[in-house]
Amino acid sequence: MSGRAYSSIPFADVRITGPFWRERLEAVLERTIPSQHAKLKEAGILDSLKLPKPVPPLAIPRNSHGFTMQVFWDSDVGKWIEAASYALAHRRDADIEAKIDAIVDDLARAQSPDGYLNCWYNGREPEKRWTNLRDNHELYNAGHLIEGAIAYLRATGRRKMLDIMERYVDHIASVFGRGPGQKRGYPGHQEIELALVKLYRLTGDRRRLDLAAYFIDERGHQPHYFTEEALARGEDPASYWAGTYEYNQSHIPVREQRRVVGHAVRAMYMASAMADLALELDDQGLKRACEALWLDVTTAQMYVTAGLGPKETNEGFTEPYDLPNETAYAETCASVALIFWAHRMLHLDLDGAYADVMELALFNGALTGLARDGTHYFYSNPLESRGQHRRWAWHVCPCCTMNVSRLVASVAGYAISTRADGVAFHLYGGFETTVTLAGVEVALSETSNYPWSGEVRIAIDPEAPAAFDLKLRIPGWAKGATAAVNGERVALAATNGYAAIRRTWRKGDAVTLDLEMPAERLYAHPNVRMDIGRAALRRGPLIYCVEEADNPGGPVQTLTLPRSAPIDAEWRTDLFGGAMTLKAPAKRLAPGREAALYSAEPPAARAAALVALPYHLWANRAPGSMQVWLAELEG
Amino acid sequence: MSGRAYSSIPFADVRITGPFWRERLEAVLERTIPSQHAKLKEAGILDSLKLPKPVPPLAIPRNSHGFTMQVFWDSDVGKWIEAASYALAHRRDADIEAKIDAIVDDLARAQSPDGYLNCWYNGREPEKRWTNLRDNHELYNAGHLIEGAIAYLRATGRRKMLDIMERYVDHIASVFGRGPGQKRGYPGHQEIELALVKLYRLTGDRRRLDLAAYFIDERGHQPHYFTEEALARGEDPASYWAGTYEYNQSHIPVREQRRVVGHAVRAMYMASAMADLALELDDQGLKRACEALWLDVTTAQMYVTAGLGPKETNEGFTEPYDLPNETAYAETCASVALIFWAHRMLHLDLDGAYADVMELALFNGALTGLARDGTHYFYSNPLESRGQHRRWAWHVCPCCTMNVSRLVASVAGYAISTRADGVAFHLYGGFETTVTLAGVEVALSETSNYPWSGEVRIAIDPEAPAAFDLKLRIPGWAKGATAAVNGERVALAATNGYAAIRRTWRKGDAVTLDLEMPAERLYAHPNVRMDIGRAALRRGPLIYCVEEADNPGGPVQTLTLPRSAPIDAEWRTDLFGGAMTLKAPAKRLAPGREAALYSAEPPAARAAALVALPYHLWANRAPGSMQVWLAELEG
Repeated sequence: MSGRAYSSIPFADVRITGPFWRERLEAVLERTIPSQHAKLKEAGILDSLKLPKPVPPLAIPRNSHGFTMQVFWDSDVGKWIEAASYALAHRRDADIEAKIDAIVDDLARAQSPDGYLNCWYNGREPEKRWTNLRDNHELYNAGHLIEGAIAYLRATGRRKMLDIMERYVDHIASVFGRGPGQKRGYPGHQEIELALVKLYRLTGDRRRLDLAAYFIDERGHQPHYFTEEALARGEDPASYWAGTYEYNQSHIPVREQRRVVGHAVRAMYMASAMADLALELDDQGLKRACEALWLDVTTAQMYVTAGLGPKETNEGFTEPYDLPNETAYAETCASVALIFWAHRMLHLDLDGAYADVMELALFNGALTGLARDGTHYFYSNPLESRGQHRRWAWHVCPCCTMNVSRLVASVAGYAISTRADGVAFHLYGGFETTVTLAGVEVALSETSNYPWSGEVRIAIDPEAPAAFDLKLRIPGWAKGATAAVNGERVALAATNGYAAIRRTWRKGDAVTLDLEMPAERLYAHPNVRMDIGRAALRRGPLIYCVEEADNPGGPVQTLTLPRSAPIDAEWRTDLFGGAMTLKAPAKRLAPGREAALYSAEPPAARAAALVALPYHLWANRAPGSMQVWLAELEG
Repeated sequence: MSGRAYSSIPFADVRITGPFWRERLEAVLERTIPSQHAKLKEAGILDSLKLPKPVPPLAIPRNSHGFTMQVFWDSDVGKWIEAASYALAHRRDADIEAKIDAIVDDLARAQSPDGYLNCWYNGREPEKRWTNLRDNHELYNAGHLIEGAIAYLRATGRRKMLDIMERYVDHIASVFGRGPGQKRGYPGHQEIELALVKLYRLTGDRRRLDLAAYFIDERGHQPHYFTEEALARGEDPASYWAGTYEYNQSHIPVREQRRVVGHAVRAMYMASAMADLALELDDQGLKRACEALWLDVTTAQMYVTAGLGPKETNEGFTEPYDLPNETAYAETCASVALIFWAHRMLHLDLDGAYADVMELALFNGALTGLARDGTHYFYSNPLESRGQHRRWAWHVCPCCTMNVSRLVASVAGYAISTRADGVAFHLYGGFETTVTLAGVEVALSETSNYPWSGEVRIAIDPEAPAAFDLKLRIPGWAKGATAAVNGERVALAATNGYAAIRRTWRKGDAVTLDLEMPAERLYAHPNVRMDIGRAALRRGPLIYCVEEADNPGGPVQTLTLPRSAPIDAEWRTDLFGGAMTLKAPAKRLAPGREAALYSAEPPAARAAALVALPYHLWANRAPGSMQVWLAELEG
């Protein structure tokens, strides 16, 4: 397990110097974090923490299943605190800190004497706490609040929120477990497991890890907790609105699961926790389950953008190869969570297959969730549009907004890992850090215009000469890779997606890496029936799309790309402060409205210049049609 | 208006001699009609007519909008009586007649003293009659019962049911209209208008025609009746579950409508009634509206199978060119109703464009609704399947079952029309009749193996020599047509889709017509984004599909048809008692499950023999994948 020994460098210890992530980070620091606080206030979410007070009317109506999203408002607060704290790690901000402190004071007041803390239940129906884990998100909320508390402590050193959450975790640990009088429950929406592992890593308190392991291992056992719990509420378990426990991955015990099913975000959070526990407990059973689930999702259930979950009704998975484009649900949160999972798998085994998917999700399925302006979002991420899709400034279920802001604010944490005698670069794009390698302090400075360019330079400055591995990820998409040390070409042999250069490094050493990233076509497995006869365009880690703003003259669906057409990259300074577009001589099928609906003649086509834009940049201009999978018609 | 003078020959006056429709007719007479009665009984629908009695619990639960389909059970009974009566016109049947008489007795007992007759309201909430025309189908039910009564009278001469319905119509006419104290209402689901025109044609009672015209013309005027009616119920009209009055085509007055919108069956019934009234009243305004709606639906909103209405939630139309294949709703009833409408348009103007669509809907969108066994059905008719679609033996909303049986039982009525000095053949396939032309009785016998073959022979036997036009429809799909009279080739010049042969006909004359029907590809307008790069196969009036039963080896979606591949017809005696299939050398994209989900290499393809089956025959064998639009990939 050579991979296991690698640990990621926390984002706070890595400076972002490259233009791509610098720009996104500034947008999040300057606009996203403050505007999200304003929206949380506006939506009544912050006020919902102020207890006790008269129970207000529901701000969000119950849906047809009788639920209101208000039950997970605590989680939105926790996630915002986490994102804002990540921002503080970049730049302290007295105003934001005062806002967080005010929230923490509210949480302190809302907490029950026994440690229980849930503003929905404490404010409305305290007697019903822990009666509906299946649907009502208490443990999920706790998880996000814990993560917020940890992030805030790390950013500021203030531990009031963590103390609150530790008391709550103590309470949770007293209620749930296999001991006498304890409930054998576990969360309907997984998330707290991740938080508990983080808490264990922060405090070293082993009980936190054990509780996470309990929640994961108890899941899906018979007699089924959610069935017992429904009966205890006087409900018919068969009338479960989701129809199947696959929805929340409790249909069978976790370590027996081999197919990714149900709600995509829950599935990804669960898999991330499983990977965490596999690592911490050296649990080969959990690792094997993770590997099987990984294979299932990446070989049969993932969009080319790394979007996950085609279906709206379960916000999740359906069946292998079912990946409709226009109706793709592909929730932003699911791609963010896939990054979490991939990152964890990468530290179980340093395998570029994990890094490739992590990067794909980062630059495509997740990043598209945040508008250029930093204040608009996508919840679902279709791969085709007639122009009906609009980014929104807020959402009745704002989970994705804070998932994408906490991701961007901590993106540097996904770039580099180390072990005693090695450093591995997973991502490029301008990252600087100082680490200890072979007992020597080493300054590392990676500079590049990644992902627009594959030319990377890494300056390596050890305090004293030091022998260690420099592991460079050679992405799966790279058509070729060459490297030089101090200008001298070195042979590169990648194992599992990483090429190692081992030598005694000295001050002033520099490695250059040149990753070939020509524009290319991607084809889907033909069982993806929607994409037969179609190609997607990729350059480096970026998936492209054609958008009507760049291709006026009708719906972009009428643009077809002959297989023989060359595809060229063009840097456009006029787009979003600079973006690499792709250009190809294409065809436009364009008979008039008067043309027959059906005809024995193929539709007439005329030459048209196709311009493709990175997928994550779409829907930032005038609304219009968009398409990722282009028909490869010769006609 | 030369077309206007043509009138269709009632189906009861036309004998079917050809094998295609003979087989379908036998299935309906022998199996469909009796089994539908059994199903009506089983479902509780027949018992629901037995009033008065204690109100039973709902047999069908209310849906999320608070409605139960039970409110339109009367219509199912009316439609079955109509279908069964059409069957009786072919073959009297004492058992069926006794069953109908029993129903009629129930209806007589259920009728209120004032003539009102609705078994839902009379049985459950008589005080609420006429309070929710928008949703509760009273006038729709009345329409179907009227049509049943007319058909039963015509088949048997028994008029008890007609008398009941005439009393009910008198009551309806007293309640609705523009007179003092009358309600300015009209049906939420159009249908009664068609029935009233039929009643007028049967009895000559002009008041029936006027009532139909009132319902059509009142529709969509302001103040909006459904709004007023909702207010009177104490409901907020804005909370109308369908969201828009486009759903039932009452958003604007009927004669101002130019786009086909909303629930497809309602739209088609309404358009049929508009065409009826345009003819009977020589109403050019209604005719113009019909023509505009026709243009809209046939140039932008119709599947290649003549299926109508892509969307499930409104059972109807969305926007131009929005024709998804796998999720197509395309209710059988909508295609049946399109046949009704096209048939009426054809008698406004003898234009082959109407006959082409009528025939397309008949052989494809409608006929596919009835299984080979005559006892299973499709409600919605997708153009693509992963194998998840199954025919059902009954449906919670059994409207389509009786729509397709009444259509098949009366199909001969769509074949031939006459005027004083002319006869027009719209359909071929073995039809015999005797008509009066130019004052002479003429026996006509068309024989052919249509739609499998385009070789048609028509024997013309006038009692005495007679000069009249023989108008032969030259279908839009015919690649060429030649004709001979008594073996001697005649020049054919089609005007508006009909070629006229005018001469003095004598006993023993025979015309042969040879319509070229090669297999061919059809292409959709490229605004139909789902079908870009794809072709459908057609031969004569039949649209084809590939079904897994004929193309084993994986989902049929992985079969691709190079544009250069020739397509040959092959008669298969082993399929459904004989069917013309199409064969083409195709490709099968077939990497294994282990192949990458996305790859820079196009998927490998191997040669495969593609077999296509007429669309109406699909889903009569082992369940499997099906596809109409085939990818024209060269690779």
